[in-house]
Amino acid sequence: MCVCVCVCVCVCVCVVRPPAGQEAYIKKTFTRMLPVIKDYSLSPRTSRIWGGGQWNSFHPTVKQCRNGWTTSVLSKLLFALPNSPLQYPIQGYTVQPLSSFVIPGLQLHAGKRSSYKVVLKVSKGILTTDIPPAEVTVKGFREKEMIIKSRSLELLNDVLVKVSYTSTVYHINTGDLVTFQFENHEAVFPIAIKQPHIPVLYDMGTDISSQVTIATKTFLRYEQLKVLLDSIRKFYSNIKVIVADDSFEPEHITGENIQHYIMPPAQGWFAGRNLAVSQVTTKYFLWVDDDFLFTEKTKIEKLVEVMEAVPELDVVGGSVKENQFYFSLIYEEGEETEGGCLYRKSNKKFHSVPGYPQCFLASGVVNFFLARTDAVQRVGFDPKLQRIAHSEFFMDGLGYLLVATCGDVSIGHQHVARSARYSKFRNPRKDDSEFKLQLHFFKNHLKCIKYG
Amino acid sequence: MCVCVCVCVCVCVCVVRPPAGQEAYIKKTFTRMLPVIKDYSLSPRTSRIWGGGQWNSFHPTVKQCRNGWTTSVLSKLLFALPNSPLQYPIQGYTVQPLSSFVIPGLQLHAGKRSSYKVVLKVSKGILTTDIPPAEVTVKGFREKEMIIKSRSLELLNDVLVKVSYTSTVYHINTGDLVTFQFENHEAVFPIAIKQPHIPVLYDMGTDISSQVTIATKTFLRYEQLKVLLDSIRKFYSNIKVIVADDSFEPEHITGENIQHYIMPPAQGWFAGRNLAVSQVTTKYFLWVDDDFLFTEKTKIEKLVEVMEAVPELDVVGGSVKENQFYFSLIYEEGEETEGGCLYRKSNKKFHSVPGYPQCFLASGVVNFFLARTDAVQRVGFDPKLQRIAHSEFFMDGLGYLLVATCGDVSIGHQHVARSARYSKFRNPRKDDSEFKLQLHFFKNHLKCIKYG
Repeated sequence: MCVCVCVCVCVCVCVVRPPAGQEAYIKKTFTRMLPVIKDYSLSPRTSRIWGGGQWNSFHPTVKQCRNGWTTSVLSKLLFALPNSPLQYPIQGYTVQPLSSFVIPGLQLHAGKRSSYKVVLKVSKGILTTDIPPAEVTVKGFREKEMIIKSRSLELLNDVLVKVSYTSTVYHINTGDLVTFQFENHEAVFPIAIKQPHIPVLYDMGTDISSQVTIATKTFLRYEQLKVLLDSIRKFYSNIKVIVADDSFEPEHITGENIQHYIMPPAQGWFAGRNLAVSQVTTKYFLWVDDDFLFTEKTKIEKLVEVMEAVPELDVVGGSVKENQFYFSLIYEEGEETEGGCLYRKSNKKFHSVPGYPQCFLASGVVNFFLARTDAVQRVGFDPKLQRIAHSEFFMDGLGYLLVATCGDVSIGHQHVARSARYSKFRNPRKDDSEFKLQLHFFKNHLKCIKYG
Repeated sequence: MCVCVCVCVCVCVCVVRPPAGQEAYIKKTFTRMLPVIKDYSLSPRTSRIWGGGQWNSFHPTVKQCRNGWTTSVLSKLLFALPNSPLQYPIQGYTVQPLSSFVIPGLQLHAGKRSSYKVVLKVSKGILTTDIPPAEVTVKGFREKEMIIKSRSLELLNDVLVKVSYTSTVYHINTGDLVTFQFENHEAVFPIAIKQPHIPVLYDMGTDISSQVTIATKTFLRYEQLKVLLDSIRKFYSNIKVIVADDSFEPEHITGENIQHYIMPPAQGWFAGRNLAVSQVTTKYFLWVDDDFLFTEKTKIEKLVEVMEAVPELDVVGGSVKENQFYFSLIYEEGEETEGGCLYRKSNKKFHSVPGYPQCFLASGVVNFFLARTDAVQRVGFDPKLQRIAHSEFFMDGLGYLLVATCGDVSIGHQHVARSARYSKFRNPRKDDSEFKLQLHFFKNHLKCIKYG
């Protein structure tokens, strides 16, 4: 889906992250030249944004966008029409870019005629077939339109069954439509044009430390971090721990299998999370906050078991000191110019995970979770979110991450008073909260958000 | 596509990165319990691996895998059969998980009968329709199989056109097949079940520094890095530069808009690249090596122009001191147990980019390129590649990144003798090269690689 952001009759900017999972992804960009409107009103609870800060202004009278958007031919609604003598593939025919593949199953099953003529047309490639017998004429070898004629239906079908499509435009993920016509019957069917991916395998090894890396971010809390690290070592003596650190005066962190990364001071929460995850080499990583505490109930193996048994899962959350927080997200796409609506419903989950009645599907979980490394790396933690954020990761992950929450694995939480210096950054100021909302509305092209 | 890695009759491990772009992704994992075979022979040029190091051993007599693999219903080859009275959608019908949507275009166009009966069947959801008139009987409300009967074809079609599919299993990207049957005619068509994604927009601003971040990795080359940074500032006074640094004795890097990240010493090349890219907040980033040198020909705007004009592009490379290196990759999937073959062809490109005759499509380019941040973050630089790597990024990106090379933008290259200490890490030792190949064979499930 491509969205354009428009204000008045200005030319606008939108870059849409390609929706993985659709047959082809579309991006459209526009140049933005907008005045910045400073006045805005928004309420974090049920918010509509009328104007805002540095990203954009949304004027309620916006109606037009100078540029349109494009949709993939592989999303186009197509039908098989009834009582047609044509036989053709409707799904599963894929060719590699700049390659030729026979179109499977092309046939004509017409009643008796003195002669038969079929026409095939394509747009992003050309058609070929074998040299036909004398009784069949083929016009349009290696062209976009091929006409096959014969007095013999059988011989015409022998030629049809060998028709090949050759993709002539290099593209890694696109499609074409074939028009197949006989008399007043016409069928349109899709061809997917895709560059195959190379598989990526992980070595699971035999030990939890080959399968899971612990990742965390720390800021001005070395005491708590050391308590966390000691508690990890009590139960997992050699599991690797990655620490992203944007403290003002970084301290040296000692210990085997601890990778410590020093960031620009106060660079930010999600920048640190994205950094830590970028360094993981194991199949899974376990996210923990720097003030958590491993206990006997922090059994990483149980989370791995669920993930291994249910390969579609990407994130499995647990409980933080018996607080099994989770939420669901409802997203309504809305009109292209206006944007969509997003609802977060706390403590709302979907059904249970097959075979694991203690685990339920949801849209987001607490900050203690096991995740499939490559899946989370593909979504990422937006480094623009510096001070406060949580649900935003799961919102960016909507439709990309399958998330579950399991009630039987928990981690402790250190209760230590926050230093004044830390609190200054941790407790959101009014402009932090507003920045976050403005970013959210612009970045995710929303007209409304409701946090419930 | 799901691949399983097997050795002898052991139970094996494979985790396949979901191929984005296919209608549904499948993962299958296996537990590995393998002895490690130390003997191996491989030649970097044309390599077959018979056994290897720490990742796995590939025994030439491997034939079986204990577990199978699954394919998505949305990849299944389906056909529209000829002379059928059934009308149905063949592409474009998508429902959201746990939601109901009317199946478009369902109709029966049969000849005169005393009565008509159609049967619809699904697997991952249920079927409903409106309360029918008295002349139509509907059996199977909210069930997987629905039977609709009537003496009136018109009334039966009125009911058919309101049949809805309700997805009953929460899944973000999957599909179902509908069987639609009348007398001896049967059609099978797909339903895509997808959680829509929330769009992600970038603010392009009005200045190159709002659009592009420069990213680099440095190791033991502070002199060269400073020369690079000075040369950047000569032409781009406030563009942000991200530096990932795994030097042994990190030095402080001064300067506005320079973000310096300190890594564990010698943590590695691709770990550093992945780190740097994880911190980018602009729509594009420009990758440069720490010994490059900006010149008057280093016009980032020209690369941005191409990317903006051709939204499908993800990476656009230039030249490094007139060396416009590029290559194409040919990948043959091979058998599931044996793996595929990968050929890298240097100086091989595809056709030109429409509208930009100086730019050509390829599979990989030199280490000076502008990239779409989200696209590259989705592929990533594998942090296991510590010492030497280049093509591996583009191999991981095959089918995910559309890559081009343009001859009209170049960057300089500082020619400074390498220190002995640096060379010790930079010049690959035999075990570095072998490690890289072993990783490559295992990770990408290959049986052969050819570097040309």
